[in-house]
Amino acid sequence: MAAYFLDRKIKAVILDITGVLKESGRAINGSVDAVNRLLSSGLQVRFCTNETTVTRSELVRELQTLGFNVENVVVFPPIPAMCKILKERKLRPHLLVHPDAVSDFAEVDQNEPNCVVIGDATQQFTYENVNKAFQCLMRLDQPLLFSLGKGKYYQEHGELVLDAGAYMAALEYATDVKAQVVGKPSSIFFETVLQDACVSASEAVMVGDDIVSDIGGAQACGMAGVLVRTGKFRPRDENHKDVKPDAIVDNLAQFVDTLLSTLK
Amino acid sequence: MAAYFLDRKIKAVILDITGVLKESGRAINGSVDAVNRLLSSGLQVRFCTNETTVTRSELVRELQTLGFNVENVVVFPPIPAMCKILKERKLRPHLLVHPDAVSDFAEVDQNEPNCVVIGDATQQFTYENVNKAFQCLMRLDQPLLFSLGKGKYYQEHGELVLDAGAYMAALEYATDVKAQVVGKPSSIFFETVLQDACVSASEAVMVGDDIVSDIGGAQACGMAGVLVRTGKFRPRDENHKDVKPDAIVDNLAQFVDTLLSTLK
Repeated sequence: MAAYFLDRKIKAVILDITGVLKESGRAINGSVDAVNRLLSSGLQVRFCTNETTVTRSELVRELQTLGFNVENVVVFPPIPAMCKILKERKLRPHLLVHPDAVSDFAEVDQNEPNCVVIGDATQQFTYENVNKAFQCLMRLDQPLLFSLGKGKYYQEHGELVLDAGAYMAALEYATDVKAQVVGKPSSIFFETVLQDACVSASEAVMVGDDIVSDIGGAQACGMAGVLVRTGKFRPRDENHKDVKPDAIVDNLAQFVDTLLSTLK
Repeated sequence: MAAYFLDRKIKAVILDITGVLKESGRAINGSVDAVNRLLSSGLQVRFCTNETTVTRSELVRELQTLGFNVENVVVFPPIPAMCKILKERKLRPHLLVHPDAVSDFAEVDQNEPNCVVIGDATQQFTYENVNKAFQCLMRLDQPLLFSLGKGKYYQEHGELVLDAGAYMAALEYATDVKAQVVGKPSSIFFETVLQDACVSASEAVMVGDDIVSDIGGAQACGMAGVLVRTGKFRPRDENHKDVKPDAIVDNLAQFVDTLLSTLK
């Protein structure tokens, strides 16, 4: 089964979650129907999120509550990828993450930290907690900083709020250490998703509301990138200095309508 | 009256305060005597600080309590310079500063903010407060961000803690707005001090513990820059990638001994 988009034969659709499917605990207009049609179209569908404020199972449960038929959909959040890296490289993290994400690191040794992992810690981004992460990096001979995504901000209850990327930038500046990003827009992260869907990059399209992490990251891998005018989207994103989306649509429903009309 | 330093005729000594004179509420070993000898040497002495967690008068009072004879010494903190800019340009700031610094902005109109001023807010750097500053910048058609210094960190109670620069970097990253720095290492700030002392840059030497803000900033103006091994100094500062101090001394006392021995 394949659809067509800009002369490309598309076999897989990769969807960002927050700002595309849902926002502040509510489904975005038309997205439930769009996702469910996509899932029954025969195209491969994967969810790819930098969400680190809930566990993967809670995220799926929330989507189901909102009406998304996502029982069998594979969701790619950054934390499992991060844990894999930590175990492989025998790294012991100092965590600056959301309290609800801490349990996802339960199997990782956190004694005598030799690296820092930063996620979207929201209210836990206190001066004290950011200082602790900073001090941990300053104590290390070879400081290592990992960031679960590098998003600048997202929309929550109608307001833009800072994402992990802002605090990553603060720690990078203070310590002169360049963060390694796990999650979007890291190519390794997108390639894991493509491998799981058994498609090449040119056969996949990414739909997201983050011009840099979603669209820029997908395009850097060879995928097409479609920007939605929902979630954190702002008009100035349409003229971003570095990233030009392959298409800009009002919302996910509009893109799915167009794509599925080309299904063969 | 002049002293000699590296073949330069020195008429003025400009001193950073925190990390050079004092640290965590205590005078640094030998600094009280060194400052008092400097003040009675006939050389011009000015204090130049990015301190924004106390008012200027409180700072002078604290130094006096510690034994520094600084009644008639002119202290240059960034807030008065900032207020001057705000008034001249008719700007109304949203403040993200230390509670003790708020009163220094009492005469500045803060209704309907059209810029953000960030200082060393310490515990007030909560997620909520940093978000408010961020949201203010995102609402503005022509966002303006001022930062009172751009220090990475300083030493407090034996530990390094984040300075305003880290949060400046976070806001710059999230908003794509470049901050304008008021305070060290801004050349305008150093030049104000030189004018007050009626000396040219080549006749002045700056002593500080911040390799970038103190030494780099002073050298960029044409002054000599002397790094002390006190305060936030760390051995790796001796091999900084961009800044090479004109001299590195164990502490202020050592520098003053050497300088005053050349007095003519």
